[in-house]
Amino acid sequence: MTRPKHCLLIVDDEPNVCDSVHDLLRREFRVLKAHSAEEGYQLMQAEEVHIVMSDQRMPQISGVELLTKLKARYPQAIRMLFTGFADLESVIAAINQGHIFQFLRKPWQPEDLFASVRQASYEYDRLEAIAREREQLLEEINGLKNRLSALESVVRDLKEPGEVRTPSNGP
Amino acid sequence: MTRPKHCLLIVDDEPNVCDSVHDLLRREFRVLKAHSAEEGYQLMQAEEVHIVMSDQRMPQISGVELLTKLKARYPQAIRMLFTGFADLESVIAAINQGHIFQFLRKPWQPEDLFASVRQASYEYDRLEAIAREREQLLEEINGLKNRLSALESVVRDLKEPGEVRTPSNGP
Repeated sequence: MTRPKHCLLIVDDEPNVCDSVHDLLRREFRVLKAHSAEEGYQLMQAEEVHIVMSDQRMPQISGVELLTKLKARYPQAIRMLFTGFADLESVIAAINQGHIFQFLRKPWQPEDLFASVRQASYEYDRLEAIAREREQLLEEINGLKNRLSALESVVRDLKEPGEVRTPSNGP
Repeated sequence: MTRPKHCLLIVDDEPNVCDSVHDLLRREFRVLKAHSAEEGYQLMQAEEVHIVMSDQRMPQISGVELLTKLKARYPQAIRMLFTGFADLESVIAAINQGHIFQFLRKPWQPEDLFASVRQASYEYDRLEAIAREREQLLEEINGLKNRLSALESVVRDLKEPGEVRTPSNGP
């Protein structure tokens, strides 16, 4: 069985950037395109997105603002920012507020884009494995507690055979 | 009982920066000072450091290089970088390679330094709580398994009283 692809959301008001990322990555990732922060936000609500990469400079909401909002609501999605401008302030804000995992400069080399998005997918898997292990441990505890309580009742019945509870004869 | 202070390591080749950070934060944090990346690395080995903040520009090893090395060896320590220069490349490297949690510009306002280091300490606590919970769940599983196997042996003995094992009478 092949593993389902990670889902990547690309947010950029330039459609050709979205298209180029889609065409480059589509064989390895499921790529969703959004042409505004608003559209990106809606897609995050509608789909299970694993990685979100956003342009910094967009007409209404900046990439940092979008990613900071997404961090609060969808903390499990790995965040990446890119920009074509040497905008130090926004990069610093991307670290301190958006806690982004990767930063890319436009234009990028296809292999750099690939490497960054792959790294992001590994990070997603790492965090997801931690969350999944926790669920499994809690389930195992639950199962053990059930077995223990069933066995305790067997022991009670064996120790006091005269008082064996026979629910079928109950009131 | 008061909670022990978080331990912060400040790495800067300018002794007065180390001293100023130490004096500002010492009431709330245990502050260790290192005047080179090498010295910082040694202190990481010798002490349990929770937060490490490093200057980017130092004579031999840069802050990004130091933090990237520390990330591999001491991933639980929260990493912060600061610099007095608008050096976009190093900030990008700090994200992509050092996966730093906070970035500060020199000179900082004391309240900004406080806010950043406090945020880092919350992040340390968050990750530490996840790791601790995992240990506790594993311990609980172990305890439940022991109780279960003890109870299983009680049930065996109760079901087959003639074959009760009496280790003291054994061969």
